[in-house]
Amino acid sequence: MSSDKNPDSFKELVQALAKLPGVGPKTAQRYAFYLLHVDRGIAEDLSDSIIDALRKISNCQKCNTLCEGKVCKICTDIGRDPTKLCIVESPSDLLAVEQSNAFDGLYFVLMGKVSFIDGVGPKDLGFERLFSRAEEEAVKEIIVATNFTAEGEATAQAIESLFTQHLKIKKKKLARLARGVPYGAELEYTDLGTIAQAFRERKQEG
Amino acid sequence: MSSDKNPDSFKELVQALAKLPGVGPKTAQRYAFYLLHVDRGIAEDLSDSIIDALRKISNCQKCNTLCEGKVCKICTDIGRDPTKLCIVESPSDLLAVEQSNAFDGLYFVLMGKVSFIDGVGPKDLGFERLFSRAEEEAVKEIIVATNFTAEGEATAQAIESLFTQHLKIKKKKLARLARGVPYGAELEYTDLGTIAQAFRERKQEG
Repeated sequence: MSSDKNPDSFKELVQALAKLPGVGPKTAQRYAFYLLHVDRGIAEDLSDSIIDALRKISNCQKCNTLCEGKVCKICTDIGRDPTKLCIVESPSDLLAVEQSNAFDGLYFVLMGKVSFIDGVGPKDLGFERLFSRAEEEAVKEIIVATNFTAEGEATAQAIESLFTQHLKIKKKKLARLARGVPYGAELEYTDLGTIAQAFRERKQEG
Repeated sequence: MSSDKNPDSFKELVQALAKLPGVGPKTAQRYAFYLLHVDRGIAEDLSDSIIDALRKISNCQKCNTLCEGKVCKICTDIGRDPTKLCIVESPSDLLAVEQSNAFDGLYFVLMGKVSFIDGVGPKDLGFERLFSRAEEEAVKEIIVATNFTAEGEATAQAIESLFTQHLKIKKKKLARLARGVPYGAELEYTDLGTIAQAFRERKQEG
């Protein structure tokens, strides 16, 4: 793109926007034109919000998710069941589980996943914190809810193999999210890996 | 979405990001998680770039496009043909024309379009500046290059009717971009409005 007609500070803004996930140079340029041309109030708001969020938000000392203050709202909620601990990859996964209303326990957010492509091994994820959290007396069941992707599977296997070696945690229940045909799916249009998984994990009834 | 588990400054950041064009709440949340979780350096860069661009970039006093300083690089380029003036809706349209390498004249950027839905009439676009620019001695040909959309057509018609009333400009050539079948198109897959336009504006050969 012959963007040498654009001013330098514009180019820098486009480059900064293009670092957002899934945003290429064309979209970044569209955002930049919008911010500078259509509504500068929105641009100021955005810059202020970023600075504000960076200043206020850090990781929960207990579950590791993003929060304002030291401990997040879920960890301090006395209505939650402290016997169940759900392990997820990211704060957005935590939010998805919350939105399903299927879980009333507590969380631990890995803030990453085992990824051989990115060179992230189990040690890089800092499982020590997860261990000390899982060892707590109150926790009776640990539910591994990593994503059903190559990386999520590798992460889950790393967690499970570490946990099964560990004496104290051995006595706790360890579970995985069920993997199978998704809600509303017709087999005709379901991918073969999902169908195969649903067969492997088929449940005996009656 | 039950996002009451998210901290307030996070929600504000999501709201600010959701004001970008074409960005809904889901995408905004993805951006926000990325900025706060994956790489905070990117978040700082983005905030700095916005502030920097807002401070440095304003409208060119001559052609109205976005630029650093008073007059943009195109308007100050002595290699451009000052007899031709191309009218476009936005700086991104200007960039598209530049990238086509089909035009070596100067520009005037409307920074808007006639839109009955948004209640923007010809008067709201401030055609006075366009007039004084078009009246300049050097300008011999005015090329209206608004988009071929309902709003772009209304804008072009408003410009043309004002120009034809105006004595001084009357003596200058007034042109529109050709509208017809796009490069690489097969008629079978071309929309009917385009084919109809190509028939209406068909050129006699030989």
